Amino acid sequence: MSAPTIDGRRLLDRLNELGEIGRETPEGCTRLALSDADMLARNLVQSWLLEAGASVHIDQVGNIYGMIAGANNSSLIMTGSHIDTVSRAGKLDGCYGVIAGIEILQSMKDQGLQPEQSLVVAVFSNEEGVRFSPDLLGSRVIAKDIDLDDALAVESRDGKAFCSELKRIGFAGEASPWKFLPKYFIELHIEQGPVLEASGKTIGIVESVQGHSWWQVSIGGCANHAGTTPMSLRKDAGMAAMRLACLLESLAADASLPLVATVGTFSLEPNSINVVPGRARFTVDFRDTDNARLREAEILLQREASALEDQGFSVQLQNLSRAVSVPFDLDLCDRLESAAVAQGASILRMVSGASHDAQMMAKVCPTAMLFVPSISGISHNPKEKTLPGDLVMGAQLLTDVLWSLANKH
Amino acid sequence: MSAPTIDGRRLLDRLNELGEIGRETPEGCTRLALSDADMLARNLVQSWLLEAGASVHIDQVGNIYGMIAGANNSSLIMTGSHIDTVSRAGKLDGCYGVIAGIEILQSMKDQGLQPEQSLVVAVFSNEEGVRFSPDLLGSRVIAKDIDLDDALAVESRDGKAFCSELKRIGFAGEASPWKFLPKYFIELHIEQGPVLEASGKTIGIVESVQGHSWWQVSIGGCANHAGTTPMSLRKDAGMAAMRLACLLESLAADASLPLVATVGTFSLEPNSINVVPGRARFTVDFRDTDNARLREAEILLQREASALEDQGFSVQLQNLSRAVSVPFDLDLCDRLESAAVAQGASILRMVSGASHDAQMMAKVCPTAMLFVPSISGISHNPKEKTLPGDLVMGAQLLTDVLWSLANKH
Repeated sequence: MSAPTIDGRRLLDRLNELGEIGRETPEGCTRLALSDADMLARNLVQSWLLEAGASVHIDQVGNIYGMIAGANNSSLIMTGSHIDTVSRAGKLDGCYGVIAGIEILQSMKDQGLQPEQSLVVAVFSNEEGVRFSPDLLGSRVIAKDIDLDDALAVESRDGKAFCSELKRIGFAGEASPWKFLPKYFIELHIEQGPVLEASGKTIGIVESVQGHSWWQVSIGGCANHAGTTPMSLRKDAGMAAMRLACLLESLAADASLPLVATVGTFSLEPNSINVVPGRARFTVDFRDTDNARLREAEILLQREASALEDQGFSVQLQNLSRAVSVPFDLDLCDRLESAAVAQGASILRMVSGASHDAQMMAKVCPTAMLFVPSISGISHNPKEKTLPGDLVMGAQLLTDVLWSLANKH
Repeated sequence: MSAPTIDGRRLLDRLNELGEIGRETPEGCTRLALSDADMLARNLVQSWLLEAGASVHIDQVGNIYGMIAGANNSSLIMTGSHIDTVSRAGKLDGCYGVIAGIEILQSMKDQGLQPEQSLVVAVFSNEEGVRFSPDLLGSRVIAKDIDLDDALAVESRDGKAFCSELKRIGFAGEASPWKFLPKYFIELHIEQGPVLEASGKTIGIVESVQGHSWWQVSIGGCANHAGTTPMSLRKDAGMAAMRLACLLESLAADASLPLVATVGTFSLEPNSINVVPGRARFTVDFRDTDNARLREAEILLQREASALEDQGFSVQLQNLSRAVSVPFDLDLCDRLESAAVAQGASILRMVSGASHDAQMMAKVCPTAMLFVPSISGISHNPKEKTLPGDLVMGAQLLTDVLWSLANKH
């Protein structure tokens, strides 16, 4: 029995329809987790799941599951993603994986197909972490990376408890978050970066999610008159910070240690045109797939901080966040690659720089991800875009692989 | 007839007394130009001038002149400085030069001495330029660097006209600003920098005031996800800006071209820990005594901006302020040096990094400046300090030189 053929037009139309919910500007939409807009989007997605013949279940953390029972109902094959967004987002991040999953179920129904194993489309709560921190909250509970009670008690930026907002929007379910533990999990997502486009490939097989280490660096020097203080008698905190920032970046650029380093924030005190800066603060975001190399980058930062202290600067380093790299299942990656090649797609084995629910699901079962290209690598932005043909190809590839897993003996 | 010997104790006491006016914190005092505090300070200084037997004159821009007529009243020998301050200032900046001048007149009176030429102590309006811009306003009018009417029309940060504030505090005088044009002008001032202290010398003979060129640099790159964007595919405006800032600073530090370069302000957009900066803005403050070298630094900045544009960045350069270097009179410097050596002082020929009224007076007559050391180079700060012995030595040296000029035939 061959895999269902999806309806590309319906997939694209539904992406547009979902993208209208929370749209506040001509291009961008804002659908923060458990907001009114999120509620409307959840209702729409739920109606599509029911239309596709799925049974719909809501768990205690608000995750939505749409299930088509298999003929031999022994295990679950799961796909899924999220439909909450950042502020002024595009239409694809998360939604693409969810709607592609629904499209599989709808196509099966349309074509009268039933798999051997059960197929589940999951819609995870609060992936983005913009309104409620930490991110990946729905899948994080499933992975037992956070206690259910702690997750429910999380407060939003505007002082609302996660559990009360869940109730308010009608998605405080009764199912256990561990009721639908799958045998395999595959997440389909836009890349959100420029790598596929630059490589000319159309399908990314994601082998791992990068780990990260975020630091706040504060350097104290001596504020002085910019006119009267010779260069040799300065203790310029701004220059010390910029040199360190450039060094960290060049290590990543030249030696790939770590893979990427980003100085995203920077400030000076007193921040006056004619005063030598007395203090500088910046953040550095290290990411690498290799946790040992991430650790090396951290040690290097500490060594450079000591060197600055030897020069008479005061340096404070504060770790803001740290997460280890998550490898995906290589057998599953191989299976994805074979299916992609069979479909005639050009593929790239790659890593994910962004976080995804799949990295939590990887703690539960063999997991992998499929990426389709992001035009100009733009994401978290109304300009987020992928070629329609790539969106359809990615969804069909997901269909083929899930179908084969659901009918594997 | 030898020069009067000043009363060091009285000099130091008066510095402390004047420093109490506008004191708002345990250490700092704020006496912005034409404020109530400035009025009180002007009244005190005027009373000291009258006590010393001087005739007091106020000109149309509020400059105060205290004059002792010479026996042969053919020309004026002038010293002076200012008594307005920045916010939370110390007690010495400006005030030292004014009170030293008054001390000369008082000592002459006490010791029954009259010079051949007239001696004038000038107290210039709005030197600091904090409340009213431009700075050096009183001496700027004398030098015809700004029209008198334009100066009187200048508005304060709080929307008050300079002329109405002058009237309000009772210092809108009737004398022409060009009534007291001197034959020589010498300003005594604290260094406000660390050069004298570092050199171990006690008297600085200032040969020139540095010129400056201030620029706002804005660099546009491409904001991107810090996790998903490989180093090789970034257009990181922050890193481009930091590299350029480090280059400008290292040219000053390594090659002294220009003498000093300061990046005092710096900001990133969107200034998010996990976003590659799409825009960076910073200021650079170049200073040099050699105007050609200052121009070279500007050309270098423009060349580096073009190089960044060739790499695909957008760069805007905006000149915020430019002033040429002002040389002082070398004969007068030599006379100051001889007098200092005769007094047993150790001297350093140097440049002033800060602006002073003397640079305006240099357009009117042969002019020079004397510096005494600032402890740790600190100024514009309640911690501004100079050793009492250095303050007294500097004032006596000024006395000796003015006396010799006033009795020169």
